[in-house]
Amino acid sequence: MAVYTHVEEEELEAFLADYDVGGVRSFKGIAEGIENTNYLLDAEKGRYILTLYEKRVDQNDLPFFLSLMDHLAHKGIACPVPIRNSEGNQLGELNGRPAAMVSFLQGVSVGRPMAKHCAEVGAGLARMHVAVADFDMKRPNSLAHEGWRTLAQDCLHAADDVEDGLAAMIEDELAYLDDHWPANLPEGVIHADLFPDNVFFLNDSLSGLIDFYFACTDTFMYDLAICMNAWCFERDGSFNATKARRLTAAYGQERPYADAEIAALPILARGAALRFLLTRLYDSINTVEGAVVQTKDPMEYVRKLRFHRRVKGAGEYGLG
Amino acid sequence: MAVYTHVEEEELEAFLADYDVGGVRSFKGIAEGIENTNYLLDAEKGRYILTLYEKRVDQNDLPFFLSLMDHLAHKGIACPVPIRNSEGNQLGELNGRPAAMVSFLQGVSVGRPMAKHCAEVGAGLARMHVAVADFDMKRPNSLAHEGWRTLAQDCLHAADDVEDGLAAMIEDELAYLDDHWPANLPEGVIHADLFPDNVFFLNDSLSGLIDFYFACTDTFMYDLAICMNAWCFERDGSFNATKARRLTAAYGQERPYADAEIAALPILARGAALRFLLTRLYDSINTVEGAVVQTKDPMEYVRKLRFHRRVKGAGEYGLG
Repeated sequence: MAVYTHVEEEELEAFLADYDVGGVRSFKGIAEGIENTNYLLDAEKGRYILTLYEKRVDQNDLPFFLSLMDHLAHKGIACPVPIRNSEGNQLGELNGRPAAMVSFLQGVSVGRPMAKHCAEVGAGLARMHVAVADFDMKRPNSLAHEGWRTLAQDCLHAADDVEDGLAAMIEDELAYLDDHWPANLPEGVIHADLFPDNVFFLNDSLSGLIDFYFACTDTFMYDLAICMNAWCFERDGSFNATKARRLTAAYGQERPYADAEIAALPILARGAALRFLLTRLYDSINTVEGAVVQTKDPMEYVRKLRFHRRVKGAGEYGLG
Repeated sequence: MAVYTHVEEEELEAFLADYDVGGVRSFKGIAEGIENTNYLLDAEKGRYILTLYEKRVDQNDLPFFLSLMDHLAHKGIACPVPIRNSEGNQLGELNGRPAAMVSFLQGVSVGRPMAKHCAEVGAGLARMHVAVADFDMKRPNSLAHEGWRTLAQDCLHAADDVEDGLAAMIEDELAYLDDHWPANLPEGVIHADLFPDNVFFLNDSLSGLIDFYFACTDTFMYDLAICMNAWCFERDGSFNATKARRLTAAYGQERPYADAEIAALPILARGAALRFLLTRLYDSINTVEGAVVQTKDPMEYVRKLRFHRRVKGAGEYGLG
């Protein structure tokens, strides 16, 4: 949510000499994306987002992310399309950072999604999952189930400061998930971070998915579980079953569920809640004093996890 | 340079219900302006900047700033025009902050101005000074010459940490300026902060002046002195006489100088350098740990002040 690397007009002009976008009309740093520096560029031939990739993004992953956006856009998924420079490259360099230009997407993210938005995002996620069928690159999920115990070891000591008894609950959950984590579900490239701030709407219709920088190869239903956690709880922590039903039904319309996927949703929802609980816990105890990025409350995901631990079956999510 | 107050889409929609701008196409927080929160809004009927005024801006001053922009825009000065809501007001409220919408200006600020940019800004500043002749509101300059001694008292104790002997130099300069500060020069509303990041260019022509939140009633030539300090020194601290000549000549083409104004430029340049030296010094010792805003180097203005202390007459600035 900040401009980490400042780009001056002269530096921009030099960078753009390799791109066929015409003269610069306007160029503003924008507060979008947590990890990178983003500028909104108005040029004669169109509007673009210029992203400078900061240190937290592994440069080796950039071709995967850019190729994925390119693939999805060509399959008709509304997402940023990387612009190629005169040498045909999607990736350039600006002020010592890897940098890429992508097309600008109209639309606004919603702070308080309604049920109709949940239906839109369910359908959009499913269309993305269908569209990656013939995308042949892979990227392991660095925050997959197998890594959660290691992640927990680095922050469990602080868990009881967040809530008394939380460390024991996390230990218990890790053991449960190890015993019951589903295998052999359909997989492919997932978004893995499709929170409301990464989805744009125009007149309540989905107009774009953005921020593919957590995308990785994993179980499709795990992606839906992440979405359900991000979109179907109210701010008071209550679970909105109508929103979940709209989300999961719309998904199923675009990509019909296998029986095993429906059966697995409750445990995947627990896993997805634990994953964000752990990273938020980790970030909260590893925050650099005075950092620009505000850490998010781990307790939000403690409450979501607690909800899912009481769920008896996918029917409670409106499925099956 | 940050989004201090987050505005959600739903909050925006409620605010915009009072404005005739049509549906929202895009809405992004931008890193522009130091003290306020700014959003770039694309709506059906146009592009706008939405500003939420944060605590450092005195709410009582807002009608002055907005009326000034309105006046200037109607006089043909390229600057943001405040948009009135359905009740005819330029000022509204959003998320507990005073808020205003202004028209969007095309153009890009230059990081390393060239002589031609200095000529453009000189002409633009003069046109603004001519245009305020019949603007009847006043606002005292809270950072005027009379206040520098008080300002210095709050930071002089730290001056020698910045450079050995700086406190004595400041004391000496304050005494000199008290003895020689010019009176009865033509005055009116000045911009008072026309640094390169507050001026937009399109194809090297000035396309807009922004950020009028230091505007106040003061000597016109003092405004030009602020510009000369901001635009005519190189990054290595050297003074570029060609740029100063272009700046002052272009100004004089649009608003001819009185003899007293030319004679006063050297001391006004010293005063303008001391004013920014003092506020930068003040900010550097009063920075909240971990603040988002990066403080600027007081030494840059120590060097500029030292240059002007050696100047013998306005001829060294290309004038007279």
